[in-house]
Amino acid sequence: MRIAIAGLGRMGGNMARRLRRAGIGVVGWNRTRAVTDALAAECGVEPAASLAEAVRRLRAPRVLWLMLPAGGATEQAFGEALGLLEAGDVLVDGANSDYRDSQRRAQEAAARDIRFVDCGTSGGIWGLEAGYCLMLGGEAEAVQILRPVLDALAPPKGWAHVGPAGAGHYVKMIHNGIEYGMMQALAEGLALLRAKETFGIDLAQVAELWRHGSVVRSWLLDLTAEALARDPDLRGVAPWVEDSGEGRWTVREAVDLAVPAPVITLSLMARFQSRDEDGFAARALAAMRNAFGGHRIRAAEAPR
Amino acid sequence: MRIAIAGLGRMGGNMARRLRRAGIGVVGWNRTRAVTDALAAECGVEPAASLAEAVRRLRAPRVLWLMLPAGGATEQAFGEALGLLEAGDVLVDGANSDYRDSQRRAQEAAARDIRFVDCGTSGGIWGLEAGYCLMLGGEAEAVQILRPVLDALAPPKGWAHVGPAGAGHYVKMIHNGIEYGMMQALAEGLALLRAKETFGIDLAQVAELWRHGSVVRSWLLDLTAEALARDPDLRGVAPWVEDSGEGRWTVREAVDLAVPAPVITLSLMARFQSRDEDGFAARALAAMRNAFGGHRIRAAEAPR
Amino acid sequence: MRIAIAGLGRMGGNMARRLRRAGIGVVGWNRTRAVTDALAAECGVEPAASLAEAVRRLRAPRVLWLMLPAGGATEQAFGEALGLLEAGDVLVDGANSDYRDSQRRAQEAAARDIRFVDCGTSGGIWGLEAGYCLMLGGEAEAVQILRPVLDALAPPKGWAHVGPAGAGHYVKMIHNGIEYGMMQALAEGLALLRAKETFGIDLAQVAELWRHGSVVRSWLLDLTAEALARDPDLRGVAPWVEDSGEGRWTVREAVDLAVPAPVITLSLMARFQSRDEDGFAARALAAMRNAFGGHRIRAAEAPR
Amino acid sequence: MRIAIAGLGRMGGNMARRLRRAGIGVVGWNRTRAVTDALAAECGVEPAASLAEAVRRLRAPRVLWLMLPAGGATEQAFGEALGLLEAGDVLVDGANSDYRDSQRRAQEAAARDIRFVDCGTSGGIWGLEAGYCLMLGGEAEAVQILRPVLDALAPPKGWAHVGPAGAGHYVKMIHNGIEYGMMQALAEGLALLRAKETFGIDLAQVAELWRHGSVVRSWLLDLTAEALARDPDLRGVAPWVEDSGEGRWTVREAVDLAVPAPVITLSLMARFQSRDEDGFAARALAAMRNAFGGHRIRAAEAPR
Repeated sequence: MRIAIAGLGRMGGNMARRLRRAGIGVVGWNRTRAVTDALAAECGVEPAASLAEAVRRLRAPRVLWLMLPAGGATEQAFGEALGLLEAGDVLVDGANSDYRDSQRRAQEAAARDIRFVDCGTSGGIWGLEAGYCLMLGGEAEAVQILRPVLDALAPPKGWAHVGPAGAGHYVKMIHNGIEYGMMQALAEGLALLRAKETFGIDLAQVAELWRHGSVVRSWLLDLTAEALARDPDLRGVAPWVEDSGEGRWTVREAVDLAVPAPVITLSLMARFQSRDEDGFAARALAAMRNAFGGHRIRAAEAPR
Repeated sequence: MRIAIAGLGRMGGNMARRLRRAGIGVVGWNRTRAVTDALAAECGVEPAASLAEAVRRLRAPRVLWLMLPAGGATEQAFGEALGLLEAGDVLVDGANSDYRDSQRRAQEAAARDIRFVDCGTSGGIWGLEAGYCLMLGGEAEAVQILRPVLDALAPPKGWAHVGPAGAGHYVKMIHNGIEYGMMQALAEGLALLRAKETFGIDLAQVAELWRHGSVVRSWLLDLTAEALARDPDLRGVAPWVEDSGEGRWTVREAVDLAVPAPVITLSLMARFQSRDEDGFAARALAAMRNAFGGHRIRAAEAPR
Repeated sequence: MRIAIAGLGRMGGNMARRLRRAGIGVVGWNRTRAVTDALAAECGVEPAASLAEAVRRLRAPRVLWLMLPAGGATEQAFGEALGLLEAGDVLVDGANSDYRDSQRRAQEAAARDIRFVDCGTSGGIWGLEAGYCLMLGGEAEAVQILRPVLDALAPPKGWAHVGPAGAGHYVKMIHNGIEYGMMQALAEGLALLRAKETFGIDLAQVAELWRHGSVVRSWLLDLTAEALARDPDLRGVAPWVEDSGEGRWTVREAVDLAVPAPVITLSLMARFQSRDEDGFAARALAAMRNAFGGHRIRAAEAPR
Repeated sequence: MRIAIAGLGRMGGNMARRLRRAGIGVVGWNRTRAVTDALAAECGVEPAASLAEAVRRLRAPRVLWLMLPAGGATEQAFGEALGLLEAGDVLVDGANSDYRDSQRRAQEAAARDIRFVDCGTSGGIWGLEAGYCLMLGGEAEAVQILRPVLDALAPPKGWAHVGPAGAGHYVKMIHNGIEYGMMQALAEGLALLRAKETFGIDLAQVAELWRHGSVVRSWLLDLTAEALARDPDLRGVAPWVEDSGEGRWTVREAVDLAVPAPVITLSLMARFQSRDEDGFAARALAAMRNAFGGHRIRAAEAPR
């Protein structure tokens, strides 16, 4: 089996490595050529100078796997790929794309008899060794073609065809929503341990302890324990938490479907809060308290 | 009618003034004597050098109204008052006391045939002119004795006997819980108006506008509009919001009664958030994201 | 002054009445003709059999005010109106439209030199007597033309030009978000009063009391007190709460702008919860508790 | 080594079994004698007819391990045990006790030179095979005495001495708070998968899939996948979720420490919501909507 991967960054690069280890041929293309060349030297990825060249190096039915940032980069490559692939070929989007985009892309691809598969990919930087959890949406025939690749990328039982076009990214989106909630639950618990100063609790010790036999044992806890072992007070980390699109889309979906999802939503908003440097809502509250009760307000340290 | 007020601060002082305007005699005692004297000069409050003297100056059935900070100061004065008052006298606690304390105090007072009334007091610094909303718990006979005082302190229909001992402070506690929620709703809305920079919305204008005919018209909005009129960007106000006991007790009560109160609870926690300088939960989240996805973390600016 | 109103339902009908009382000429059109005729008989609205006729009866610069359900009905009338109006005419959308639609419509109208004004309208069924709070987005010249109409519809100070096209509906959307939060805060507080059974609190009495001098006094409280006075236990009301688009859009906006709005969001989700007859999340929790702790689960009463 | 266990229910019984497998002598006492006898027959637990007999059968330093329901049963056994044990003996409370009770009990025990150890115990019904995660508070010397027992009960690295008296139950309490949050995140995610009906997602398949390589892999997910495999729609489970004390105490603690814990708190309140048959808050919202906007309300099906 031989496939092309477009995008050899943190995720795509490791996926290429993992496929190579399994003896699967990989044609690789990356915007920055040096990345491709390094991977070629490292593990025998066949370098391609362009998406067109990557596709040319495959035999029908071609499998082109996009592993680019969701949004513009994926959209552009998708459009270009439609012009390069032929009827019966398989085009996979492994990015964290909005499932609605995937539904649209599947239709556009189908109009040319190209088989589009949306693949939610979980596992992060650990996937190289542990394997990736792959959630696939699209037609069964297309997934069937991908089977050797999926077996190589995922750990045993680690991939599944979860539904029609879009379903793969939908399931991945919800996965990430759950991830937000689990992370926030852990973070709140750690903050509560830390705040109880009289007990002098060693957070690294407790996180490690919980890994063994407790109800909250989980991969996120494993990673948290490691991070705390390295830096018990997380002195090196600022309280600034980014969010990617999928948490937001999960909330959008909850609102669209009228499904209550308070914990996932609040987990997202806790991240917003961490980046809220203006603090206007809090300032408005302080101003109101002052207005009705004469309560002291803290003067802003510097004019905003 | 003549009553004694213990505690002539922001609330107690204005209540004394309002009673004097209604022609009610007020014996006043305050820890700092100068405050008492100033009020005596201003509006004819009879100064007392001690709680004992204040009580001595009354005739049975005596009415002693505590208007001290909830907690230690109220507890101490309550204990002293029990030794000074006689059977049939009325002891009012107008502070923001925990209703459980009021239940206990009512029992302790009843053991000496002293009538304890817990009075939730709303209205803040505006009560002097607009009247105070008074929520009374205790026996009907005791409330009956207070009637002329209540009529003078409250606006028309602005006081009520809401239940047995503790009920007055319970109702006030819930009132404040609602207040937290309303304030937070307003604050979030203002933050959303402000964040939509392309519209260049004038917050002071909108807050003023909403006062006239909108569904959210309310006294809190009136005050917010005034605060924004004075300082449209609230530049002078830091994003630091205190909380008093009653928000916390409302949440405690929701938990004890197993009543979902997400909005009141989150309003309280938004205040905690505004004062969270450690930001440990956010730092833990950032560390986790880095651990599983290799996501960039912001280095803490200075060692914590 | 004379304007046409399209849509004479609960809102549009009362607005026509209020304009007529102020001596402003109203041409009225409604999908159901009988409604138009009744209003014509009642207060001198000039009946029109079609949008086209309504527009024909006006003189330039014409003012056509859409007061139709947001979404399809408004979109259709908007499209038709573009074909009927002429350069310089004013087209107002007074519905609860998504502000993004209003931004788009303003552009489409501007392409024909028609002046589009988006008007957020608050006040509900009480607006007839109390006046409507009107939040206007669009060009100043167009708002200027509407001035006599706005003065008639709104109470004093009850209308304002808050920004460019879309800003009127944006401000109304946020207004409704705040409304959701205030309502939820009140509802939680009432539930907490009710749950404290030992106090036997009379909710109608307390709601009425709080109207006088308390910090939470507000129009929503006024209405709540009236509803409780009529039906103290709300026996006639099922725990089923609809939501309109604006709460959802507010949450969407909070997510898009990365502004934390926990209270508004949870207020929306509490409504979703009230309509969640499947209860799958709760069933999943019960199943998990059973799985790890052997905790008893309640059997579903009937197969789902 | 030989210890006595008081309480041989779901947790205590399995702990006795696990200790016996490790060759540790167990004197067992249970309120219902038949339970003790069955365990004696099954695995050689020495039956005791009373707490006093159980203690008599031990040699100094005696180890008495209470594994009774938190609250009254534990308090009573604790009090009795203080009269039975001698200086230098170790008294362990393995229940889900409030850490404040444990702090007090440690002081009461210390007054008699009895060493009290509070032991948070996680693992549920799976602990027998997988081992229990044990979080210990108290003096190091006492924990040292327990070492062989702890090694037998816990999996490798599965116990730790986390702090002074009370710290064990504090850490367990926070553990359960995190558990609530993780469970709620999973439950919301599953509900969102289910609500997307057009995708026809097989929840059991997805839960199983996520166990392999995903970021949310966790023991709670393992159990969820099993539960869904048995009953994919959870038809047999009613949407009624109990809560034990520890979730409530975590929220109480968050409030006392002023630590924002929105996700843990909302997870608890989601459980309250699942049991809210009165639905008064929702009914109040519906009544308000009707009052200001004339919005239709659903009539209650039957008088409440």
